[in-house]
Amino acid sequence: MKTSPLSPLGRRTQPPPISWLMRMTLERPGLISLAAGFTDNPSLPVREARALFQDLLRDGPAGQAALQYGSTPGLPQLRELTARRLCELDGPGAAAPGRLIISSGSQQMLYMVTEALCGPGDIVLVEDPTYFVYLGILQSHGVETRGIRMEADGLSLEHLEDTLNALSRDGDLPRVKLLYLVSYFQNPTGLTTRREKKSRAIEILRRYERRAGHPIYLVEDAAYRELRFSGLDEPSALALRRHASRVIYVGTYSKPFATGARVGFGVLPEPVFTTVERIKGNHDFGTSNVLQCLLASALESGHYDRHLAILRRRYRHKAETMTAAARRHFSASVQWREPQGGLYLWAALPGGVSAGVNSRVFRAALERGVLYVPGQLCYAPDPRRRRPAHELRLSFGGATTDQITRGMARLGGVLRAMV
Amino acid sequence: MKTSPLSPLGRRTQPPPISWLMRMTLERPGLISLAAGFTDNPSLPVREARALFQDLLRDGPAGQAALQYGSTPGLPQLRELTARRLCELDGPGAAAPGRLIISSGSQQMLYMVTEALCGPGDIVLVEDPTYFVYLGILQSHGVETRGIRMEADGLSLEHLEDTLNALSRDGDLPRVKLLYLVSYFQNPTGLTTRREKKSRAIEILRRYERRAGHPIYLVEDAAYRELRFSGLDEPSALALRRHASRVIYVGTYSKPFATGARVGFGVLPEPVFTTVERIKGNHDFGTSNVLQCLLASALESGHYDRHLAILRRRYRHKAETMTAAARRHFSASVQWREPQGGLYLWAALPGGVSAGVNSRVFRAALERGVLYVPGQLCYAPDPRRRRPAHELRLSFGGATTDQITRGMARLGGVLRAMV
Repeated sequence: MKTSPLSPLGRRTQPPPISWLMRMTLERPGLISLAAGFTDNPSLPVREARALFQDLLRDGPAGQAALQYGSTPGLPQLRELTARRLCELDGPGAAAPGRLIISSGSQQMLYMVTEALCGPGDIVLVEDPTYFVYLGILQSHGVETRGIRMEADGLSLEHLEDTLNALSRDGDLPRVKLLYLVSYFQNPTGLTTRREKKSRAIEILRRYERRAGHPIYLVEDAAYRELRFSGLDEPSALALRRHASRVIYVGTYSKPFATGARVGFGVLPEPVFTTVERIKGNHDFGTSNVLQCLLASALESGHYDRHLAILRRRYRHKAETMTAAARRHFSASVQWREPQGGLYLWAALPGGVSAGVNSRVFRAALERGVLYVPGQLCYAPDPRRRRPAHELRLSFGGATTDQITRGMARLGGVLRAMV
Repeated sequence: MKTSPLSPLGRRTQPPPISWLMRMTLERPGLISLAAGFTDNPSLPVREARALFQDLLRDGPAGQAALQYGSTPGLPQLRELTARRLCELDGPGAAAPGRLIISSGSQQMLYMVTEALCGPGDIVLVEDPTYFVYLGILQSHGVETRGIRMEADGLSLEHLEDTLNALSRDGDLPRVKLLYLVSYFQNPTGLTTRREKKSRAIEILRRYERRAGHPIYLVEDAAYRELRFSGLDEPSALALRRHASRVIYVGTYSKPFATGARVGFGVLPEPVFTTVERIKGNHDFGTSNVLQCLLASALESGHYDRHLAILRRRYRHKAETMTAAARRHFSASVQWREPQGGLYLWAALPGGVSAGVNSRVFRAALERGVLYVPGQLCYAPDPRRRRPAHELRLSFGGATTDQITRGMARLGGVLRAMV
């Protein structure tokens, strides 16, 4: 055979970096993984889910309905509850059930939005660094990326504007489709984007739309919004009512409730809504009805919010365990910031010290039995710069407090020896 | 704005014909739908699912594992059970767990296989008629189609060969990626492809591969295989061990157990397996773990097979109700065949009488309060012929026996008046 039978997408789709990291964990039983974005195991709502299923799957039509096909955009009750929840956070009118589509985790929503908007040769603006799995989606669709620098309160508006200016000069604006923000306790940096920045970012994008010839969307990935354990909730871009036609909001119930249940959602303006609804029909006709019923009952009964309160306390405790260990074991030259939510602590090594995939630090950490995500993997390909390699993403999500303490001690030992 | 922000895929993706038919059902409360491919509601395994969840979600690590992320290709136990089941049907070595990927219904597997193999301008060979939702997937990916005529025991090998010859003459073989067969109680015709035909079809495809420059796959969609209520199981293409590198087998647990649970699977040769595994990672990291655990326990405990036995009796009864009504209410000039499994009865009107979307028959049926799927919708676009419009797909899956009896009487009245 002369050629591959694969499609261009098939050929472009790469193995995700996490699969390689996960394999490493499985192969070394003693290894402490501070790499995986898993959520906390012991606090998973087993008892709650059991009680909810027990109630849902009662004899008669209601139980049957839960096990039957639903409709493509999702269970009306769950769309309604989700819209109501968003309106409580972002103000009346922030989200209507009719603009909501339920998906298999927020991941599927990101995939479908990308399918709907981006083709080969298009350009997506992302934070620098950003959620690396999304970079895999973009790569598989042949999409180019430009990284926008991060500041303590979210992306640099100056760098956003510079980037758009440069794209404009090169005649590349028609290829720019969206700006992707992980706006709450960002994966990987833990940073949160302030409302004001989202608002100004959209205004900037809109100024370039005329030369782009089409809308440029803000895709707000709010996956970690509910996993906040200190500070106040920042309004999402859905609160910016006059920009509603440009905001795509992606959320999830998986991380705050049960990752094994895989229920997420998107709030979408036209023509994205109609297109994603059709794509969703082609993917799977709609997310599992029984899981949607589970989430709807969890929300309606108050189980969800009670569980969330427990989860927040738990993640605060785990984050504090990690930061206490960082204070104790990391030298002062290693920089990191106290997380206020989410699952991650982001640490930067001083000077030219690399923590990258092929670095001495990464290999020494592995030998000492601790795994982290090299920050390098979180930087999008961008022709304007090399990918920085001096950072580490550390997760306090899946590991136990004991593992966190021991893992950080091991890592601290490595860093003290090498930095 | 001058142009659409949508990607080429976004622009190509059309609303599915079923959404329009479903809306019609909702808008007319008295309407009897013999259109939707829903499964039987009263026999859904509510009690079984409740008991299984109760057992799965016990306190401790096992319950937690069910609610946590799984791995991308799927729950090892479910892959193992599925492979074993296929080996029982198709012989030792027919399927290995390591070649199996679990998906959100078989629909998602069809989508991912198409993504992996087919790009714009490629050609897929389908049965004439075929599963119309798959036609939507192909269209959204910019794929052209050629319909291969059907005979009582599956596709016409002669027409397959003629089609490949013509494509070869035109230099189009490099664009041909796969032959898609719904091989058991086909949607829409109810026909089953004999093993011998699958074997010869692959041999024919392989003869054209050299000129294609790459493998041409047989994608066997076995969605209805387990919904057999008379006759014996026909081996699948997985039984043809020497063609293993060319067979993609797609199955589902949704229809035989609970459509609301959305668990399907694919058995895939390389390089399709690796590519689909990566695509699955990008879609959703893997199908909901809790649903996979549910299916694994249902299979392991015997609940699944006991339920299947009940379901088969039930569908046989519903199919007999429909055929009895057809015998009574349809004139002898309307042709149809006794279903042996699946959910559908396929009927053909004589002469040039149309049952198509804009036909007098379809409108009169709607006015009399009965809905069917115009057979027209099941024919792929094919430049070589017009889409036949004289057929109807009637489903006995979702309707009650009483609705089937009344719906068929109404339809019979329309047909007697118009044919």
